Amino acid sequence: MKLWEKGIPTDKQIDLFTVGNDRELDLILAKHDVTGNIAQAKMLAKIGLITHQECEDLLGALAEIQEDIKAGNFTIEDSFEDVHSKVEYLLTQKVGDAGKKIHTARSRNDQVLVDMNLYLKEEVLQLKQQVKALFDLLMASAEKYQNVLLPGYTHLQIAMPSSFGMWFSAYAESLIDDMSMLNAALKVVDQNPLGSAAGYGSSFPIDRTFTTKEMGFSTLKYNSVAAQMSRGKSEKTVSFAMASVAGTLSKFAYDVCLYMSQNFDFIGLPANLTTGSSIMPHKKNPDVFELIRGKCNKIQSLPYELTLITNNLPSGYHRDLQLLKEGVFPAIQNLKACLDIAIFSIPDIKVKENILEDKKYDYLFTVDTLNEMVSAGIPFRDAYKEVALQIEAGNYKSPKATKHSHEGSINNLCLNEIKEKMNLAY
Amino acid sequence: MKLWEKGIPTDKQIDLFTVGNDRELDLILAKHDVTGNIAQAKMLAKIGLITHQECEDLLGALAEIQEDIKAGNFTIEDSFEDVHSKVEYLLTQKVGDAGKKIHTARSRNDQVLVDMNLYLKEEVLQLKQQVKALFDLLMASAEKYQNVLLPGYTHLQIAMPSSFGMWFSAYAESLIDDMSMLNAALKVVDQNPLGSAAGYGSSFPIDRTFTTKEMGFSTLKYNSVAAQMSRGKSEKTVSFAMASVAGTLSKFAYDVCLYMSQNFDFIGLPANLTTGSSIMPHKKNPDVFELIRGKCNKIQSLPYELTLITNNLPSGYHRDLQLLKEGVFPAIQNLKACLDIAIFSIPDIKVKENILEDKKYDYLFTVDTLNEMVSAGIPFRDAYKEVALQIEAGNYKSPKATKHSHEGSINNLCLNEIKEKMNLAY
Amino acid sequence: MKLWEKGIPTDKQIDLFTVGNDRELDLILAKHDVTGNIAQAKMLAKIGLITHQECEDLLGALAEIQEDIKAGNFTIEDSFEDVHSKVEYLLTQKVGDAGKKIHTARSRNDQVLVDMNLYLKEEVLQLKQQVKALFDLLMASAEKYQNVLLPGYTHLQIAMPSSFGMWFSAYAESLIDDMSMLNAALKVVDQNPLGSAAGYGSSFPIDRTFTTKEMGFSTLKYNSVAAQMSRGKSEKTVSFAMASVAGTLSKFAYDVCLYMSQNFDFIGLPANLTTGSSIMPHKKNPDVFELIRGKCNKIQSLPYELTLITNNLPSGYHRDLQLLKEGVFPAIQNLKACLDIAIFSIPDIKVKENILEDKKYDYLFTVDTLNEMVSAGIPFRDAYKEVALQIEAGNYKSPKATKHSHEGSINNLCLNEIKEKMNLAY
Amino acid sequence: MKLWEKGIPTDKQIDLFTVGNDRELDLILAKHDVTGNIAQAKMLAKIGLITHQECEDLLGALAEIQEDIKAGNFTIEDSFEDVHSKVEYLLTQKVGDAGKKIHTARSRNDQVLVDMNLYLKEEVLQLKQQVKALFDLLMASAEKYQNVLLPGYTHLQIAMPSSFGMWFSAYAESLIDDMSMLNAALKVVDQNPLGSAAGYGSSFPIDRTFTTKEMGFSTLKYNSVAAQMSRGKSEKTVSFAMASVAGTLSKFAYDVCLYMSQNFDFIGLPANLTTGSSIMPHKKNPDVFELIRGKCNKIQSLPYELTLITNNLPSGYHRDLQLLKEGVFPAIQNLKACLDIAIFSIPDIKVKENILEDKKYDYLFTVDTLNEMVSAGIPFRDAYKEVALQIEAGNYKSPKATKHSHEGSINNLCLNEIKEKMNLAY
Repeated sequence: MKLWEKGIPTDKQIDLFTVGNDRELDLILAKHDVTGNIAQAKMLAKIGLITHQECEDLLGALAEIQEDIKAGNFTIEDSFEDVHSKVEYLLTQKVGDAGKKIHTARSRNDQVLVDMNLYLKEEVLQLKQQVKALFDLLMASAEKYQNVLLPGYTHLQIAMPSSFGMWFSAYAESLIDDMSMLNAALKVVDQNPLGSAAGYGSSFPIDRTFTTKEMGFSTLKYNSVAAQMSRGKSEKTVSFAMASVAGTLSKFAYDVCLYMSQNFDFIGLPANLTTGSSIMPHKKNPDVFELIRGKCNKIQSLPYELTLITNNLPSGYHRDLQLLKEGVFPAIQNLKACLDIAIFSIPDIKVKENILEDKKYDYLFTVDTLNEMVSAGIPFRDAYKEVALQIEAGNYKSPKATKHSHEGSINNLCLNEIKEKMNLAY
Repeated sequence: MKLWEKGIPTDKQIDLFTVGNDRELDLILAKHDVTGNIAQAKMLAKIGLITHQECEDLLGALAEIQEDIKAGNFTIEDSFEDVHSKVEYLLTQKVGDAGKKIHTARSRNDQVLVDMNLYLKEEVLQLKQQVKALFDLLMASAEKYQNVLLPGYTHLQIAMPSSFGMWFSAYAESLIDDMSMLNAALKVVDQNPLGSAAGYGSSFPIDRTFTTKEMGFSTLKYNSVAAQMSRGKSEKTVSFAMASVAGTLSKFAYDVCLYMSQNFDFIGLPANLTTGSSIMPHKKNPDVFELIRGKCNKIQSLPYELTLITNNLPSGYHRDLQLLKEGVFPAIQNLKACLDIAIFSIPDIKVKENILEDKKYDYLFTVDTLNEMVSAGIPFRDAYKEVALQIEAGNYKSPKATKHSHEGSINNLCLNEIKEKMNLAY
Repeated sequence: MKLWEKGIPTDKQIDLFTVGNDRELDLILAKHDVTGNIAQAKMLAKIGLITHQECEDLLGALAEIQEDIKAGNFTIEDSFEDVHSKVEYLLTQKVGDAGKKIHTARSRNDQVLVDMNLYLKEEVLQLKQQVKALFDLLMASAEKYQNVLLPGYTHLQIAMPSSFGMWFSAYAESLIDDMSMLNAALKVVDQNPLGSAAGYGSSFPIDRTFTTKEMGFSTLKYNSVAAQMSRGKSEKTVSFAMASVAGTLSKFAYDVCLYMSQNFDFIGLPANLTTGSSIMPHKKNPDVFELIRGKCNKIQSLPYELTLITNNLPSGYHRDLQLLKEGVFPAIQNLKACLDIAIFSIPDIKVKENILEDKKYDYLFTVDTLNEMVSAGIPFRDAYKEVALQIEAGNYKSPKATKHSHEGSINNLCLNEIKEKMNLAY
Repeated sequence: MKLWEKGIPTDKQIDLFTVGNDRELDLILAKHDVTGNIAQAKMLAKIGLITHQECEDLLGALAEIQEDIKAGNFTIEDSFEDVHSKVEYLLTQKVGDAGKKIHTARSRNDQVLVDMNLYLKEEVLQLKQQVKALFDLLMASAEKYQNVLLPGYTHLQIAMPSSFGMWFSAYAESLIDDMSMLNAALKVVDQNPLGSAAGYGSSFPIDRTFTTKEMGFSTLKYNSVAAQMSRGKSEKTVSFAMASVAGTLSKFAYDVCLYMSQNFDFIGLPANLTTGSSIMPHKKNPDVFELIRGKCNKIQSLPYELTLITNNLPSGYHRDLQLLKEGVFPAIQNLKACLDIAIFSIPDIKVKENILEDKKYDYLFTVDTLNEMVSAGIPFRDAYKEVALQIEAGNYKSPKATKHSHEGSINNLCLNEIKEKMNLAY
């Protein structure tokens, strides 16, 4: 069944090409489609386009469909173009003519918009929770290892003393910025597009404020053309926020992979978090973090994919927009999996003690030495030259202890202040 | 003068390659660098690393430099590597040893961070103002032309009635979403990184809360490593928000160019907003809107440029980050210019009346007809088939008037509600 | 079975995360994996690492596996990590110890490299054929419609006369450039990496020239490190060529969608190539070409995805590279489908005659008029001003006929020369 | 002077916005513009549109202009829109009416096309030379250091023995693939678009084969519409080839930066190739290679910038295309600078001897040990388990010598074969 079937047989090859993997992807939207249908049915009854009995019948049928979806028994056969057609078909099967009326004053276009906004809202809320959980975990690790020193690098050259406390909580504090992006994305998708129909509204006296409340959206996307234009824009906005989170996680994973290398050897991973080689029996590879990195890097390409699909299309719906889902759905799934596996794995990271005992790390303390001289009254530029000469001559002596005490330094991590900042952002 | 000069002549070619166009770009940061130096001087005095007299001297000298910058008299000669070196040199020239002490407890790395955050904050605030101005203008146009009908398209096929009121206010409402992104970006850059030094803090007892207040930042980026990691992340976040604004503006410009085509002929532009052809004397081309579109499309590639430069670099500073500025500065300048020129040009857009009189637009009203039938009791799917048959037979009659009355439809644009939503977002 | 299984139970969640959808994707590589195994077996026998009987046994078993693959009976169960493990398992099942020996002197890394290069080579060759077929079709259409005039646009403004002959053959000639890119990609993937093992070669005296000939590669990727580095680079190179083809096809599809709009109405599509609307009974939408456009635009984002996954990884294998396949495989499939459906649909494009009779197209001929004046001796700039004045005054008369006769103009399409150029490039 | 000036004062702000930095960029095209004008003048004389005297006059004036360009005395004042207007103005100044006639049968559009193709062709040829020079240098380094061993990594874990010979020549062999891409790009830009006028040809009987030969193009872009469509496509194709080269160079630079880290310490750089820190007196940073990496990564974003500007524009010129130059010109300049500085710096890379003496590298040889066992008749999978147990028990003994002898392995680098492959590709 195609909703637009007009008796002309459409070529099978064309059908395959145009429908693509939409049926499979639409399963993810099914529960949201039902939510949208419930609001639609109630609203149609409220404005008198269907009777209250018809509404009751529809709500009963929709409850059954929702049960089937939860139970994993909902399917979209090849005879249906998408989830919307299938749900409408089921309603017509279950309650007859009332089923035919549910589509009054709407279009598949705004059904997709509604489903996507409900879906994206739910997913962004989940991402926020996961980011918060990762934050909590990194903060706990920072607290636990705040006294374990680590070399700090600039240009990948040994630079100044750092610590595992600094390292873990740096990524935690970075996540607060990603949270701001997720909040912005949430605001963008938490708007009701239902009623925009094909992008120009309807001549029926529908009540969009009512459906907004019914579906729990914070506000309406008022203008019907704006609602239609949000297709692609919602997805892009969420993808920007996802790219933000993914960028932070990818960078952390890169550090883990580097610090696992025998040439750094700052951390270890238990056997169950490493994999081996088919030909090198000694290998314990940090595949989990390599894949977190790789997947998060791939996720960072999503905004570009979505931009290319939507860009330079004039206003109004175009079929191109159907292709957004197949990029967005797996990317969200992957980001959630990356966050999950990071949360699962980080507690198992084994931090090495006494790293700085290796003499190659002595130079980490030259700036501290220099600062001592400055505190003793020597102008900075002069102290700089003096220490440089000591190093050149090979007689520089490292103090091997840090006095850093200011906000956000090794001995004053400000973990509480960072937690407070996250609480405000979350 | 190079701050790290150690007496070894660096090859001139290397110098050219490594410094690049940094001096030119740094002129944009000069005023922010002075702001950062003022906070630094006051803080050093507060914690006793310089005397109050030295502080007074530095502040006097910095005020002079700030005047020179405002007057356009500040330059960065080839003998200086960047703005930071030049300002420090001037301070040393003007106040002697106190000038040498200003760099105590900081690094060029956090100077760049501070300058960039101050700069980005100022620019994002300006972008917010411009987006609000564009919003106001589009809303005024929507109000002015709310009764002028326009064909609505889907698949670039004539679909349903729309109006200039719908069209203008659709873009206005879209800008509210962009405003949410700008707000998120603002939050990310409105944090004080000063004191992170080379990315691992300082052994001096600096007061970062003090400098935060001095420079007007809302909060600190506490963790010094996080502060360093914000290099690139701040820029990327702002670029996401810019891409969001640019995407909306580009789409509007595309519509303008299409509607200007003789094949649509929905709008006109005055001669001063068009350009001609070197060989076709009849041409009046909408170059301004083509360039808004093109520039905004280019801006949408900025996030990918910044991602490619920063991605897969482990934590800690890398020289690669120097290259961020040369993409960010002109992109911001271009986006501001695009917004300016849009604000300048939109009031001159001449809207054509009576567009729908052309008979090819009759089919715009089929859904309205269909809805009338539904209201009269015919099930939707049956009405759909009936109207399809009328069209096929060539005897469909268009009502040529719209009854759309729901929130966000032609006759109920909800302009006040949209304005209220913007006020909450701004 | 995991090849690197060392008796430590790997967490199930980890397993799911690390293997991902690799098994499904690997089915595509199965036949190439067998090809690589055949070459490997023969080579091992040649250098005496297995006996000729063992080689015979392996070849027999591999032939059976190849049959199963062709028949669609080959599967990769969850107990196998990838196609390589499954094939090796089957060989051990079928021929015992000889199966265990097949992996001598190679690694899964170079198996993937070999499979991918064999796969990419086959696909690029197919893409070349399809591009050639599309070229032939466009050229035939150009020939067929060479006398049907079409307005030419610049800035989407009516500009100068064009024709369907010009339009069709322009895209054809553009494809020749894409063919050059495909040829470059072919050269890059047509190199044998087998023997690079884990990226540093093997201590066995393997014969790589022999396997090169066996598998039909044109040359070796000699350096083992270079062979390993080609992972990602091969995929990226092919993706550049694909982006090139996709860019051309997307642009053509955009033209088709625009020309289908009632506001242009230059072409028509038969009912079986259009789709309808769920609420607008009059709609006949060019979904096929919208989806060609959208899919081709998405394909153009592939190079960026692959770049982000591979960029800034130091030399040597990283697990991130596993993620390349899941982007490359569907993109190739999609591009082939787009080419197929374009080839299927283009012959059905109905070209409208007499388009230029509409008076809005009169100005198309101003340059021709102007050129007549120039030929009559009036300096170009003076003629330009004269015609501009006629247009301004509304008394410009259109000749409504073209004299264009130079190479590549309306009346001299040079179709034979373009065909000759394609023959040289193909 | 604007060519399309029709007496209407165009707003100054509009002018600034539309012309942008075109004048500055156009200086790079000046010499090519003269080349195009010379061909045009000769052709116009050949077909009788100007007299031979006029042609002589024009050629004389063009020779003078070319001299001025070479001498650096050519400028484009604010009163001119672009290089084409300025050259035409100069010709009119110098030779009167003949100057006015030079623009007969062409448009600024094809002037830009011609200039760009001439420019891109020259630059691609230069890039090819530089890539070849870098190849030669890397091959020489490979030969010089072929016996110095280096640890090979997979997953950044110590894996198997490699050598500086392997490392240097791996990048050299990779460059051959980039050469194939440059060749494809060369083919695409080495086509004459002159005569396509505004994209639809001319009604004058121009001789395009003649101008093709005059300008040294290998062939014509025959179809005038195809010639116009090559705007953007030429740039994109060159950018794909550039991204290819940049990807290789960036990866090499990443290795250098990593190997320079004290944690690897495989190579050293002389003082003139490093820079210092403003606060850490001991730092010697590999800024040159960090900037090669960063610039090459930025270059890899060029294709996306160009794609975003050009994508989803229907056929025919759009003003957006003007924006291509400002991305392409500096990117080419940067890639050439990166290649130059790499060629300048690589000979100074100091290779460390005896790296493998550190006991952490012992495991590099486990596969070799394992292979010995296999050669002695033990099945591979059994040998694998045995060595794994030795490692676990801590009694694995490293042979510390490599027997790798096959094509492309440590002791058989096949440098001559690789050189031969490059010769065929160059």
